[in-house]
Amino acid sequence: MREIFEAELQQVGDDLQEMSALVAEAIDRAGRALIDADHQLAQEVIVDDLAIDTIERALDERCLYILAQQAPVATDLRIVVTALRMSSTLERMGDLARHIAQIARGRYPDRAVPVLEPTLREMHEAATRAARRVQGLLENRDLELAAQVKADDAILDQLHRQTFTTMLDEGWTEDAQQTIDATLLSRFYERFGDHAVSIARRIEFLVTGELESAAHSHHDN
Amino acid sequence: MREIFEAELQQVGDDLQEMSALVAEAIDRAGRALIDADHQLAQEVIVDDLAIDTIERALDERCLYILAQQAPVATDLRIVVTALRMSSTLERMGDLARHIAQIARGRYPDRAVPVLEPTLREMHEAATRAARRVQGLLENRDLELAAQVKADDAILDQLHRQTFTTMLDEGWTEDAQQTIDATLLSRFYERFGDHAVSIARRIEFLVTGELESAAHSHHDN
Repeated sequence: MREIFEAELQQVGDDLQEMSALVAEAIDRAGRALIDADHQLAQEVIVDDLAIDTIERALDERCLYILAQQAPVATDLRIVVTALRMSSTLERMGDLARHIAQIARGRYPDRAVPVLEPTLREMHEAATRAARRVQGLLENRDLELAAQVKADDAILDQLHRQTFTTMLDEGWTEDAQQTIDATLLSRFYERFGDHAVSIARRIEFLVTGELESAAHSHHDN
Repeated sequence: MREIFEAELQQVGDDLQEMSALVAEAIDRAGRALIDADHQLAQEVIVDDLAIDTIERALDERCLYILAQQAPVATDLRIVVTALRMSSTLERMGDLARHIAQIARGRYPDRAVPVLEPTLREMHEAATRAARRVQGLLENRDLELAAQVKADDAILDQLHRQTFTTMLDEGWTEDAQQTIDATLLSRFYERFGDHAVSIARRIEFLVTGELESAAHSHHDN
């Protein structure tokens, strides 16, 4: 019984790691599709999002099975419940990568918001780092990575604010399409960072037993 | 033991109903604050969002307690796990109402995007109906309400598309601030509808045991 439980819990961990790897791939490729106006790559990200959704459903069923069959308590219970939450957060991160790719695909053969390329590139890099670090955290629980994810999120918040300031400046002469795209892209990347931090915090909690104060987690954006 | 369990499960149901009532209040007031440029009302929505977050945390802890102490199985287990998912969806709906109120507050004493008032009014009405129907669903499991929530969401999707079409038309001469606001508001309302449908589907599943096909639930927006 215990061996079956251990095996099931291991599979849950493997599923989370697989989802996080797919999410990191998705956000990396979505950003590159956006910056390079790569229609093919954008299309792949959009299609591959279904794989992330599929693992989420399988993982959720597996967690329900564990809860029903094994009635875990204490730490094991927190791990299973945390896995349920993280799978839905990872699924949402995959959706955000897909939304970025959809904008890239929609503007082809043009690039989306060329005037903001430096900012989009920084957002792409920060989001991709955050996703790789979330992947690392799920593999090895190295809390240094959790701190780095929060730093990436702070960068994404700052780039988001900067983008809005740029668009509201009188020097912004881009058309409505580009204003819409910049607004959405900036928001997608900023939300991606929020979700990455949410996962980092849950892993910190699992490892240390301590929850960061609610004041830090309430986003007033 | 069974009595304690029943009492705890009842409390979970009460918490969800309370959250859904607060969410319906929030989206109703946020829309009115937006359309009427009501700074005071906007500020109340923003502050009151903390109450929704507080109930979410209490509900999550209660669910963990039930899972740990009672080891529920079968239907009771699905109810507890579903409650966990619905509480985080309701919390997110509260956040979206807060974001709408923040835009209303930020543009005061002007109204946000006056040229789109008819559309914003329709979005406000559809979202408020959806939230009230979710509240009703959590009280009495009337699946007719679930069908109505999906209809409200379809209206919100259509208004979202309409808003983007309007902004991309050459007749759109509004400045960047209004383009940004229209983009965000439209997205917030559209996401609110998505979340409402997600809750409606979960309640349908709990009641009927049948999950709507994945093809219906995959949003490619």
